[in-house]
Amino acid sequence: MSRQFITHTIKTIHQTSHYTFNEMTVSTDGIQKIFPQVLRIPAVMIIPITPTGRTVLVRQYRYPVQQEMWEFCAGGIDAGEDPDISARRELVEECGLSVDTIEFITEFQALPSAAINSFRLYVTYVSDDVLNTATHREGEDEILYTRIFHLNEIRDMILSGEFNSGTMLAAYGVLAAYLERGRDGGQGGQG
Amino acid sequence: MSRQFITHTIKTIHQTSHYTFNEMTVSTDGIQKIFPQVLRIPAVMIIPITPTGRTVLVRQYRYPVQQEMWEFCAGGIDAGEDPDISARRELVEECGLSVDTIEFITEFQALPSAAINSFRLYVTYVSDDVLNTATHREGEDEILYTRIFHLNEIRDMILSGEFNSGTMLAAYGVLAAYLERGRDGGQGGQG
Repeated sequence: MSRQFITHTIKTIHQTSHYTFNEMTVSTDGIQKIFPQVLRIPAVMIIPITPTGRTVLVRQYRYPVQQEMWEFCAGGIDAGEDPDISARRELVEECGLSVDTIEFITEFQALPSAAINSFRLYVTYVSDDVLNTATHREGEDEILYTRIFHLNEIRDMILSGEFNSGTMLAAYGVLAAYLERGRDGGQGGQG
Repeated sequence: MSRQFITHTIKTIHQTSHYTFNEMTVSTDGIQKIFPQVLRIPAVMIIPITPTGRTVLVRQYRYPVQQEMWEFCAGGIDAGEDPDISARRELVEECGLSVDTIEFITEFQALPSAAINSFRLYVTYVSDDVLNTATHREGEDEILYTRIFHLNEIRDMILSGEFNSGTMLAAYGVLAAYLERGRDGGQGGQG
């Protein structure tokens, strides 16, 4: 049976300079439903990786969940800004790293069941010496500090529940796919 | 410098039986900001895996982003329902698979920068013969069809941008961590 997905209305309930909150009235096979639709500024995320498999995470306080979380370097794309520039800028602001070459991997929607909130994910290869200089700019967003981790440590933090931001787990998922394909001899992944 | 994160108010702007939309007024180091906070029903996700590394995905239409996406089996925890029961129920409803043993891996927050929307992730080991029977219940949510994939195919779909739901990429990230630790001889991961 082919299914019918009809969007009847998208009504703006609340709007600020940072986001818009809409409610959608839809019908699936003739049955009415409503969905939230939060529109947020498109974002970038960039993961520096060293030849020994190390990276840097930022410790950030997240108001909506009222907790500190481990995150990759990420942030919104400024109006009119080229996303590649946003990625480099965020890496300077949040981790103090200025890099030459960055590689775009893919783009995803952070929470498609309730939001339009896209993330473009990049990696960049840096030496361990360069990574060791990583530190955030004082007063940057809700960042408390940065810390260097081996990817194996992040893997263990995922399984222990310490690394529990879905947006960041999504980035880890993409990175895992990228590095695994590299190991299997396909495109991508120097690791 | 220690940083100050103060939540001043959480005001409900819109509420339905499925979600609540709040706006938070906060101050970071004395600078006022606002954040959206969407409260959604806690959810479960369950990934069946076979000895040959195959699983099943559902093709689902997502109104907020107005597109079809590939997803793992997932859904909300009904009021008062044990999450383990929710996971088994969703696997029956969305994939037609009734299983004995399920394993909880971890819980994450899907979009901590804007929502309280937790997911508890489970895996379950099934034979390839059982997996081959997978099919969704007609009229279930916005599901169009189910299809069986090898995990390597999902990896390639991530890198090509075909598998682009952040929530599902987060689950893939956790699964990758779990299976990798299994391969390295730690706890977990039969794969």
